Amino acid sequence: MALPHAQPLDIVSVRPLGAALGDAVSTSLLKTDRIQLLHLVLPVHSDQPEHHVDDECTIHCLEGDVEVVMPGGTRRLRAGDLVVLPARQRHSVRARSDSAVLVTLLMNGGDRGGAGGASRT
Amino acid sequence: MALPHAQPLDIVSVRPLGAALGDAVSTSLLKTDRIQLLHLVLPVHSDQPEHHVDDECTIHCLEGDVEVVMPGGTRRLRAGDLVVLPARQRHSVRARSDSAVLVTLLMNGGDRGGAGGASRT
Repeated sequence: MALPHAQPLDIVSVRPLGAALGDAVSTSLLKTDRIQLLHLVLPVHSDQPEHHVDDECTIHCLEGDVEVVMPGGTRRLRAGDLVVLPARQRHSVRARSDSAVLVTLLMNGGDRGGAGGASRT
Repeated sequence: MALPHAQPLDIVSVRPLGAALGDAVSTSLLKTDRIQLLHLVLPVHSDQPEHHVDDECTIHCLEGDVEVVMPGGTRRLRAGDLVVLPARQRHSVRARSDSAVLVTLLMNGGDRGGAGGASRT
């Protein structure tokens, strides 16, 4: 079931889910022409396939322990760590324990055309 | 003392500081042409003056309890809550307890000229 997006000025909770993480699913929290917020739930040993997005993005580990795996190296994020990826940075995300991450995608809006999507690489 | 900015791909910690919050100061964590991350330390009863930024921004309460006060209403954020503000939304931030927030500012880059700054309103 798709949840409705929050709107700007809505309060959005991204606090750790703890024991409820096992029943949670990934959701797109909010999307505007300029930004999209994703709450990704990553069960232990899950491995998001390598992909890239067209603009810069941030990956903020809210709970658990994940690896952001890139051709040039790996960044391990524990709860409270974040990393900014350059535009079009190929990466995958591996969960070393049950984890949740907040992904902030920058959208180029309508003035550059067709940007902001994710592509497998 | 100004701390050096982190670079994209650097791991940046925004985990709660707890007892160390009292000795912390606000910092700009990272800045690119597209995004700026600020870690704002707000002692209880501090009141950031009303201002706005040119593009959308997110305010993510990392610890404590803050109010985002706007002409149209107030949003109270506790640890783990965030709000997205529309571009040019006038707001101030009041701390109801010792607090830290992560602010993500979108920068328009060089193609729109002079954007991304903050202005008192």
